[in-house]
Amino acid sequence: MVKALIFDVFGTIVDWRGSITREVRAIAEVKGFQINAGKFANEWRSGYQPAMDRVRKGHLPWLNIDALHRLILDELAKKYQLGQMSEEEMNTLNLAWHRLKPWPDSVRGLKILKKKYTISPLSNGNFSLLNNMAKHSDLPWDCIISAELFGHYKPDPETYLGAAKLLDLNPSQVMLCAAHKDDLLAAQACGLKTAFIKRPREFPPSVNLDLSFDKRFDFNADNVIDLANQLSIV
Amino acid sequence: MVKALIFDVFGTIVDWRGSITREVRAIAEVKGFQINAGKFANEWRSGYQPAMDRVRKGHLPWLNIDALHRLILDELAKKYQLGQMSEEEMNTLNLAWHRLKPWPDSVRGLKILKKKYTISPLSNGNFSLLNNMAKHSDLPWDCIISAELFGHYKPDPETYLGAAKLLDLNPSQVMLCAAHKDDLLAAQACGLKTAFIKRPREFPPSVNLDLSFDKRFDFNADNVIDLANQLSIV
Repeated sequence: MVKALIFDVFGTIVDWRGSITREVRAIAEVKGFQINAGKFANEWRSGYQPAMDRVRKGHLPWLNIDALHRLILDELAKKYQLGQMSEEEMNTLNLAWHRLKPWPDSVRGLKILKKKYTISPLSNGNFSLLNNMAKHSDLPWDCIISAELFGHYKPDPETYLGAAKLLDLNPSQVMLCAAHKDDLLAAQACGLKTAFIKRPREFPPSVNLDLSFDKRFDFNADNVIDLANQLSIV
Repeated sequence: MVKALIFDVFGTIVDWRGSITREVRAIAEVKGFQINAGKFANEWRSGYQPAMDRVRKGHLPWLNIDALHRLILDELAKKYQLGQMSEEEMNTLNLAWHRLKPWPDSVRGLKILKKKYTISPLSNGNFSLLNNMAKHSDLPWDCIISAELFGHYKPDPETYLGAAKLLDLNPSQVMLCAAHKDDLLAAQACGLKTAFIKRPREFPPSVNLDLSFDKRFDFNADNVIDLANQLSIV
């Protein structure tokens, strides 16, 4: 019997693309430079997997996501010629990832699920990022579980198994809820239950992702409230 | 400026003595044995510091508090001749520490403080214990920080500094709130701010503890709501 629901965050609970696009557009207006803010947001996010891989392969020491986001931002700043931004402005922009806005169903869905389950993020975002984001957007987590606690990034098994161990649960008592099938399959390989949450607006339409419901997962849901419905607790 | 309040839990937020006494009395009634439940609770708690010291000195491997509580319970079971209890009953009794009841002001006080600060336990209790206790008693933590995350027990500096690091704050931006002066002084030595919370009923009257307000601490409060008052957020 499942006791805890752990959630991917970027894309599953919050809309990183819309949020980052808005923040980049806002600062561009203040600073008076022209920029394709949506493209910038996508490129910032695209740099994230390769940066984690550099950590995973030992080409970089352990760096948290704030530090990886800043590495990528510094490269993008050169490409987009953002040289006119101060260190303080760069730091504030980098922390835009702490202020990502939830999808419209996320907070209400989580509040329903919290009545019956322990709910926690299981995210590659660092602990302080996840805590600040929750404070900022009223995400009602019971606790914060970050990949940072294990010194491993998802989809390394240490993260899924580490979350179950911290909660003192068997892997089969924990369900990962995520919009990304690779994340779910990695959790499933560790013995966790899985719930796919469809997020068709996470990426721009030009990105061709597999958003189909999938029998390999224990649940397939249109959003977090739909998941609560399927778990019969609405 | 303080951004996060971290709390000692056993004694400061929850009444371990009253809770354990009630649970022991209840199981004694069910099983039909005579026991001085209050004395049993005090002895169970008294075994806790020596057990942590055995871990700290390397005489035991890292064991979490659930495991330490069970070690002590097994010894007490011999002394009090509880041989008639099944393994399941012993395990349920051991988990009484997950069900400790908050002091009357704790939940309301924490809800007020949460509006302005990140609030978290910093407890030697293991992560799952603290999470289960919060679910059980509606403790509104933003996140759960357990000594278990650092592989060190309070008052080791790794715990206070580890909490600040996880929150990405300087030690001086974090305030430990606790009913025990040794805990506060250890945090202060690491650069944290300190708030003493007076809990005159934590121990029986026969235990002569120093409960006086103390100028060495940044705040001295009668309870959690009083602390919120002093921080001007009521």
